[in-house]
Amino acid sequence: MHKFFYPQSVAVVGVSANPVNLAQGIVANLLKFGYQGQIFPVGPRGGQIFGLPILPSLEDLPRPVDLAAILTPARVVPQVVETCGRLGITRLVVESAGFSELNEAGRAMEEEIKGLLQRYRLRLVGPNGLGLINMENGLALPFASLNPPPRQGRIAIISQSGGVGSHLFAWMAREGLGLSKFLSLGNRLDVAENEVLAYFLEDPGTQAVYLYLEGVRDGRELMNLAHRAAKPIYLHVPNVGEETAVIAHSHTASLASDERVVEAACGQSGMLHIKHQREFLAAAKLSGQPPVNGRRVVVLSRTGGEAVVTAYACRQWGFKLPPLSPRLAELIRQRSRAGVIRPTNPIDLGDIFDFAVYEEIVAALCRDPEVDAILFNYGPMADFELDRGREMARRCVEQARAAHKPLAVTILVSLEEEEYFRETLGVPVFHFPEEAVEALAANLHQDNPAELTAPEAPLLFSREKVADILPMEPGFLSLSQALALLDALGIAAAPWGAASTPEEAVALAGRLGYPVCLKLDAASLVHKTEAGAVILDLGEPAAVAGACATLARIARDSLPAGEDWQMVVMAQVQGGLELLLGARRDPAFGPVLAFGAGGVGTEVLEDVSLRIAPLDPAQAREQIAATRSGQMLAGLRGQPPADLEALSRALTILSQFMLHFPQVQEVDLNPVRAFTGRPGLLALDARVRVK
Amino acid sequence: MHKFFYPQSVAVVGVSANPVNLAQGIVANLLKFGYQGQIFPVGPRGGQIFGLPILPSLEDLPRPVDLAAILTPARVVPQVVETCGRLGITRLVVESAGFSELNEAGRAMEEEIKGLLQRYRLRLVGPNGLGLINMENGLALPFASLNPPPRQGRIAIISQSGGVGSHLFAWMAREGLGLSKFLSLGNRLDVAENEVLAYFLEDPGTQAVYLYLEGVRDGRELMNLAHRAAKPIYLHVPNVGEETAVIAHSHTASLASDERVVEAACGQSGMLHIKHQREFLAAAKLSGQPPVNGRRVVVLSRTGGEAVVTAYACRQWGFKLPPLSPRLAELIRQRSRAGVIRPTNPIDLGDIFDFAVYEEIVAALCRDPEVDAILFNYGPMADFELDRGREMARRCVEQARAAHKPLAVTILVSLEEEEYFRETLGVPVFHFPEEAVEALAANLHQDNPAELTAPEAPLLFSREKVADILPMEPGFLSLSQALALLDALGIAAAPWGAASTPEEAVALAGRLGYPVCLKLDAASLVHKTEAGAVILDLGEPAAVAGACATLARIARDSLPAGEDWQMVVMAQVQGGLELLLGARRDPAFGPVLAFGAGGVGTEVLEDVSLRIAPLDPAQAREQIAATRSGQMLAGLRGQPPADLEALSRALTILSQFMLHFPQVQEVDLNPVRAFTGRPGLLALDARVRVK
Repeated sequence: MHKFFYPQSVAVVGVSANPVNLAQGIVANLLKFGYQGQIFPVGPRGGQIFGLPILPSLEDLPRPVDLAAILTPARVVPQVVETCGRLGITRLVVESAGFSELNEAGRAMEEEIKGLLQRYRLRLVGPNGLGLINMENGLALPFASLNPPPRQGRIAIISQSGGVGSHLFAWMAREGLGLSKFLSLGNRLDVAENEVLAYFLEDPGTQAVYLYLEGVRDGRELMNLAHRAAKPIYLHVPNVGEETAVIAHSHTASLASDERVVEAACGQSGMLHIKHQREFLAAAKLSGQPPVNGRRVVVLSRTGGEAVVTAYACRQWGFKLPPLSPRLAELIRQRSRAGVIRPTNPIDLGDIFDFAVYEEIVAALCRDPEVDAILFNYGPMADFELDRGREMARRCVEQARAAHKPLAVTILVSLEEEEYFRETLGVPVFHFPEEAVEALAANLHQDNPAELTAPEAPLLFSREKVADILPMEPGFLSLSQALALLDALGIAAAPWGAASTPEEAVALAGRLGYPVCLKLDAASLVHKTEAGAVILDLGEPAAVAGACATLARIARDSLPAGEDWQMVVMAQVQGGLELLLGARRDPAFGPVLAFGAGGVGTEVLEDVSLRIAPLDPAQAREQIAATRSGQMLAGLRGQPPADLEALSRALTILSQFMLHFPQVQEVDLNPVRAFTGRPGLLALDARVRVK
Repeated sequence: MHKFFYPQSVAVVGVSANPVNLAQGIVANLLKFGYQGQIFPVGPRGGQIFGLPILPSLEDLPRPVDLAAILTPARVVPQVVETCGRLGITRLVVESAGFSELNEAGRAMEEEIKGLLQRYRLRLVGPNGLGLINMENGLALPFASLNPPPRQGRIAIISQSGGVGSHLFAWMAREGLGLSKFLSLGNRLDVAENEVLAYFLEDPGTQAVYLYLEGVRDGRELMNLAHRAAKPIYLHVPNVGEETAVIAHSHTASLASDERVVEAACGQSGMLHIKHQREFLAAAKLSGQPPVNGRRVVVLSRTGGEAVVTAYACRQWGFKLPPLSPRLAELIRQRSRAGVIRPTNPIDLGDIFDFAVYEEIVAALCRDPEVDAILFNYGPMADFELDRGREMARRCVEQARAAHKPLAVTILVSLEEEEYFRETLGVPVFHFPEEAVEALAANLHQDNPAELTAPEAPLLFSREKVADILPMEPGFLSLSQALALLDALGIAAAPWGAASTPEEAVALAGRLGYPVCLKLDAASLVHKTEAGAVILDLGEPAAVAGACATLARIARDSLPAGEDWQMVVMAQVQGGLELLLGARRDPAFGPVLAFGAGGVGTEVLEDVSLRIAPLDPAQAREQIAATRSGQMLAGLRGQPPADLEALSRALTILSQFMLHFPQVQEVDLNPVRAFTGRPGLLALDARVRVK
């Protein structure tokens, strides 16, 4: 990646002197940003642009350049790539659109280019992107006019969409946040996010990285990078749902991950999950400060109303406002001009017009190890305060820096003071206290999350036995196959047996004990309940026989002609809590485990937590505890807990199963029943799909 | 209120020539805002300020002024009020702090002032506020310097806190939103929010009202005003929780309502519930546009990435992106320069550089009755586009205005274009598409909510029978009293009886049928389960006798010496869903009904919906349907529903009960069981408290 960001010379291919030519925007940006290397505009019509001659062809270059930025019609790009290869130009940035994001012809062109990259050992950023920027050396390759230009600083942006990236660094500039490097991935024909992220994580000029992706390419590698990173990573993946998927696909040819999977991946690897662009801006304002080590904050506010608003926000984001230390309380009591201020937290500075007191308070808070962060709502109330207020602000900022204490400043009313903080003190400020609290939350210190690729734990089941049961042909396992699989995995199901005739079913029911339930067992029948093929509460032999007749009719009416079927007789389990245990395979993150409310509650309660595999029993316990169902299982109001160990063991087994049998696409155990005060669990239904 | 906002002359009391005198800020603002009436600074030391003589006393006024703005030390205020009364100055705005928000002495001063107001028939705004502003006539009474000054416009602000109000109108100015009138309530000694709101709702210069309150004074009247209002009302009440309550109390002496009650009140009366200051700013940007009549939006975006971001936000806020009409799709297909754009919604305008096409698309969307709103992400990509882009923007805005079609514009990258839209076109713009979608959601057309004070429905129970049961002394009813009350109200409980001895209990259990449960019944025992005083699953006489012994021991150990007690024997109910039905009295909004998950689920599931009384059965049905429990009761996956009619009737009964018996403080029926496919409901426990 280094040669992409630090080239000594750049050719810009596709330039003409026509004022609506887009590629000339690249040349304009290189000049505007003060790029110090050589710039060679290239375009078949020749001429001049911004005082530079336009070379008719790359062949006219005096020697190979380090990098070629290409913005020609898509159909010409393969030929340009070929020429670069022949001439030994190894770093290509393609901004042209019209490739796989548009149609099959575009996809074919990408394949052609891929072949050329391999043949000539070239590296390529794009196509269908906005290139890259390095603020250190003025290398600015976007064709669009960047107004306002980014401000130089220490946050790097990787964006699949050039538009989102450039909108954000314009806003960063407005908010006093500086950019170190930017790269627009586009269609990711060659260079993709993980390679760029790894480079930025090592880049000395970068202290935090924002990633905008419309689809994650290799989620497990991304998690591993994030896990090892010492810098904050902000991950924004808005591409969820069908509507967005369509446009994102046509836009940069991406495949969507479920948002909840992204959420789980961020939690497990220590990335911050960004859902709105403004969230990133708020979080980034504190990225230059030490992390917030706990939830105890003190609020200083020049107006009581904004103190209330801040306290409310603290409550919403889970921060505590502990009482002030006795010494600080006494200080405030002494210094309140008319005795109008109470020494509470939040501190309403209302009537204190002596700024020396503000400095004393901030100094005391900086020294106090019981204070994790300071929120300061400041604004001058009268013109005579302006100069003294600025001096006070400067000293407070210096104190907090020296003490490594996070300080989040919201400027009240006055826009000029915002400017002063941002430009003179170098402190990005918040416009509303709610944003400051949100930023503190984003900046909370996290314990290092668990390694994704932990040393392999011993298998909790016999690989051979399980392999014997898994069918070779793709599709859903029949219910009896799935239940036999659970048995081989060591996950308990309710007592059951298979029967082919009413007589066998009645005999089985007698052995299992009444009441029982009957289920139709056929490979093609996936949604049994909806088909009426699950009959509950059968209390005596006649009822079982009657149910057999019903299932036979359903089999005749619903199954494909000639399909084999039988019946599963299962002991009817009373009581307990209905749960869901499941797993599926995410295109980017691999196997994902699900735990939550089962039965009808699955749809209505929306009480599911996800974890990316592998999972050990301790992590599975955390996953369970993260749900409301898990809280109920833990025992409420003095009730005994359910068998959390058995549940976490079952999730761990599913994790191992998915990792060891890549042909398995999904497992859905729903409902599983667990009982407070009783050991074990019982799966009542199982769906398993292989490919 | 009119005389407060349109005085011909104003006295400012408390002014001195000392540069740190705060009251001179009031005079400065009146001059700066161009107030055309007469201004009389008043202060005992005399002198001059801004070229105006300072009168030593109100007595020196040539004639009574229409309004006096007072910012003296608190202790002097009663005397100033008295003088105003004597001189016939009837409108007072007191900005001094140090009253009931500070201490008892301050509260006593307020009482003294209240007496003076009555004696002289005066009206007073404040104390402990920032006064008021009328942008029409330049009447600006805040003492704080307002920089930037508000912009004149059509949004009115009522704020208990002067600080929050002035911070917001500074931000409104920045965002192109204009202020009509502002009033800071402070301690609300006399003028309170509802009177000001009623005035603003009639004010021809005001088209929307924002209310910041740290406590609602008369919530039912507020709801009635909102219900009748034709203008949007934004209600922001951040004061929840103990921490905030303390500061809000010391700040403006308020009493908190539960946030969920405020939420219910907003929903029932058509106010928009604001939780963050920025939410109000976003919503207000569309307040000048027609309401959004449905959830079908079309997104136009100059960059594909921001199109994805917008579609994602639409999904989050519940908007639909329907396919484009065939004609529009064909238009886009024809006009796409390199055929790079697909005619999907969102429309990624990417490669269309011909602005005439943008105008054609917007024109087609304006004509389309199937489109409820247009989201437009626009920004110039190159300098040569600037002028044509602005012309296109102007025409699009005009078309949308003429067609009464809501149009939310987000400006990409370029801050200069924001300025152009705001200042030249008079259109506030959004900085991020997520905000635009949030604003559309806030601006959704609502059907007129139900009247709060509906014509009295016939009572569903006998007033006399219920009155007979309610005790005179305050406190909790015993369990048997509460169950008897339910009987009188016509709400079914599980079959039960009271017993004093083990023999009576066993006999009763035999009549009720096994299994039964036993509960200790004593007035002082409120938390029975936690005390171990509920014994379940008693299957035979010996178990009942044993449980009686246990309860006797608990009674001996836990009850106050000498307190009477007995036992309640209740049939043990199996199955069904555990629910909570309850009611309590909110200090501002009066009786509030609660419905949701009961039993242990009450704590864990947090599945409760609230409604302000009165409630009719149809509204109760909506309340039930608003919960996840209600969705389960409605019958899922082909299950029959529970008896929703009985449940909504029970809620209606509780509503009538609370309204007719003001001494009742709370009713808590938890658990109540309801059963899918079976009529009726059964309360298993009841707590009732009277005062």
